[in-house]
Amino acid sequence: MNAPILNTPWTREEFEEKLREKGKGYHIYHPFHVMMYEGKLTREQLQCWVANRFYYQIGIPQKDAAIMSNCPDKEIRKGWIQRIIDHDGEGDNVGGIEAWIKLGEAVGLSREDVTSLKFVSPGVKFAVDAYINFARQRPWQESVCSSLTELFAPHIHQQRISSWPSMYPWVKEEGLIYFKKRLTEARRDVEQGLHVTLDYFSQSREMQEKALEILQFKLDVLWVIADSIMLACTDIKVEQNVDYLRQPR
Amino acid sequence: MNAPILNTPWTREEFEEKLREKGKGYHIYHPFHVMMYEGKLTREQLQCWVANRFYYQIGIPQKDAAIMSNCPDKEIRKGWIQRIIDHDGEGDNVGGIEAWIKLGEAVGLSREDVTSLKFVSPGVKFAVDAYINFARQRPWQESVCSSLTELFAPHIHQQRISSWPSMYPWVKEEGLIYFKKRLTEARRDVEQGLHVTLDYFSQSREMQEKALEILQFKLDVLWVIADSIMLACTDIKVEQNVDYLRQPR
Repeated sequence: MNAPILNTPWTREEFEEKLREKGKGYHIYHPFHVMMYEGKLTREQLQCWVANRFYYQIGIPQKDAAIMSNCPDKEIRKGWIQRIIDHDGEGDNVGGIEAWIKLGEAVGLSREDVTSLKFVSPGVKFAVDAYINFARQRPWQESVCSSLTELFAPHIHQQRISSWPSMYPWVKEEGLIYFKKRLTEARRDVEQGLHVTLDYFSQSREMQEKALEILQFKLDVLWVIADSIMLACTDIKVEQNVDYLRQPR
Repeated sequence: MNAPILNTPWTREEFEEKLREKGKGYHIYHPFHVMMYEGKLTREQLQCWVANRFYYQIGIPQKDAAIMSNCPDKEIRKGWIQRIIDHDGEGDNVGGIEAWIKLGEAVGLSREDVTSLKFVSPGVKFAVDAYINFARQRPWQESVCSSLTELFAPHIHQQRISSWPSMYPWVKEEGLIYFKKRLTEARRDVEQGLHVTLDYFSQSREMQEKALEILQFKLDVLWVIADSIMLACTDIKVEQNVDYLRQPR
């Protein structure tokens, strides 16, 4: 449209590649998650993470309902609704929220410790709420695009499934059910999200670049959640004389 | 109303006292603000704070407009509109946003460094947006209540006016205009906000307690902004083996 002549859209394959490259900013590389993977968290720190992250888990179906509330396309809604069912449960499937509470119990928390939200730090709330409000306030295709951190999720779930039994042998085995469940679901979910995004944002290079910014916003949500959990669950010492303005994010 | 018999409402004076007691959680006690007051920030760290906090400054009039958008009471709006004018400016009064840009220049940033938002950390955005979305989504009296951190603001502004000339003598004097301006405005603003809050929430003890929770939410917004700025502008070292679950916030 208003694109300068040289800004031709990337091909569908190039665009997908650019989206996947954003994985280098996934929270799997956050210091707190690196500590977790390396087995460096104490029991209390792992509990603190589980209790805080629960606020994200309960936000997900609200975020997905917000996307559906903005989407007039029945076929999209018919696919998207599965996400809400996956988290809330249906029949014998207990759902992701309940599986996360079981994870809480597996690390030694009580159900009430988790569901009361009493250990959730305000920074985690603000980041999760930013995601829900994005879905409420933006066109549904933008919110779908923001969900594409799912591209990178199987890796972090797999990491936990592989490392926890040796690093945190005291965690009860049923605690891993959530991660195993999401491993399958995230792989399936990402297909619909990717399809919508590649279609909608391929109209121009500007749109494609906007999609990358939206994905960055969601990466920021996850990163800030990890930042807030690190501040809430570890001891932090401020070191001086570092010049940060040279590296804008 | 549904209050247990013993939960009689506090008197207006007791309720005001409870609101003022929340000042012990004001961000003036945040480690980053303590460092600032004690002159321990480097030039770059002070710049980083000014650049990040600008996102809060530009959010304020949007927050106030959101409150007015929910308020059907003309008399309240006639008072509240002054806040938008104070920040946006009118005639010869440049307004708080412009005064903050001048503060940026006084600490050595360019206008573009500040207004581009390129140094604003995502955590600051999420906290400020949480405040704006609160004002969009809640009854106007609740949003008015959330503004009552103004009760505590003159203290922190006065601290900066007193300490900066000796602690940060390299900051140009006109940088302090914003704080001097807010010193007067915040004292005046708080009267309307306090009046609305004492009236509206005095119907029951539950309502009064809700008001304290709302004020805590706003204190959390300011605290998380400071947390995020500390993470973005200083070097942080994680120390191990601290048991945080024992102290829920």
